[in-house]
Amino acid sequence: VMADFRTVAEQFTTFYYNTFDADRKGLAALYRDGSMLTFETAAIRGVSDIIKQLTTLPFEKVVHKVNTLDAQPSNEQGGILVMVTGALLVDEEQRPMNYTQAFQLLPDGQSYYVYNDVFRLIYG
Amino acid sequence: VMADFRTVAEQFTTFYYNTFDADRKGLAALYRDGSMLTFETAAIRGVSDIIKQLTTLPFEKVVHKVNTLDAQPSNEQGGILVMVTGALLVDEEQRPMNYTQAFQLLPDGQSYYVYNDVFRLIYG
Repeated sequence: VMADFRTVAEQFTTFYYNTFDADRKGLAALYRDGSMLTFETAAIRGVSDIIKQLTTLPFEKVVHKVNTLDAQPSNEQGGILVMVTGALLVDEEQRPMNYTQAFQLLPDGQSYYVYNDVFRLIYG
Repeated sequence: VMADFRTVAEQFTTFYYNTFDADRKGLAALYRDGSMLTFETAAIRGVSDIIKQLTTLPFEKVVHKVNTLDAQPSNEQGGILVMVTGALLVDEEQRPMNYTQAFQLLPDGQSYYVYNDVFRLIYG
């Protein structure tokens, strides 16, 4: 039995940002070869290039704080659209930056992986 | 032949916000009975309740300005994930509000409709 899509979205989001903030390499478990990441203006496909992108971002420390988390079923096979808005603080910066991130999660056996991932900072 | 997903995303986004700003009732053409809208904390399903929500928002005039528009294929049947960040100005307000909106567009014959729609204002 699949968990409710909202519960999956919440568990995914907690795990995703905890892992991002603790050790970005650990995110490799969440992507597959067909996964897509748009990170600001960079468009990347496949787990290995996605992890390379995420682990070479120009900061050492980052803390994400989620402000809103919304989820909807994205298809009839258990896919889930997740949209997050939040703030992040990098290294010794005192001013958080606002961001938004949309994911599509697809089921894979008993678990889920990230098929779509779009990240943007919000300015102004 | 289907147009490139980026072209579809751009044409959709232009049409969506032009219609929203000119006459929200016209958005009915973009939704179906299975369509989902999360508008801030309201979760709504089906074209008729979606249009009721959008046409009863507490402002008369609104102007959207898109800042970023990203798109990815969302499945192998021509679906498209679109994520927009932008600003909007309502009625006589002088200060724009930032927002983010994620759509999943699904093909329907020669055209597309909105299956998923998640809208959030960004504060702070």
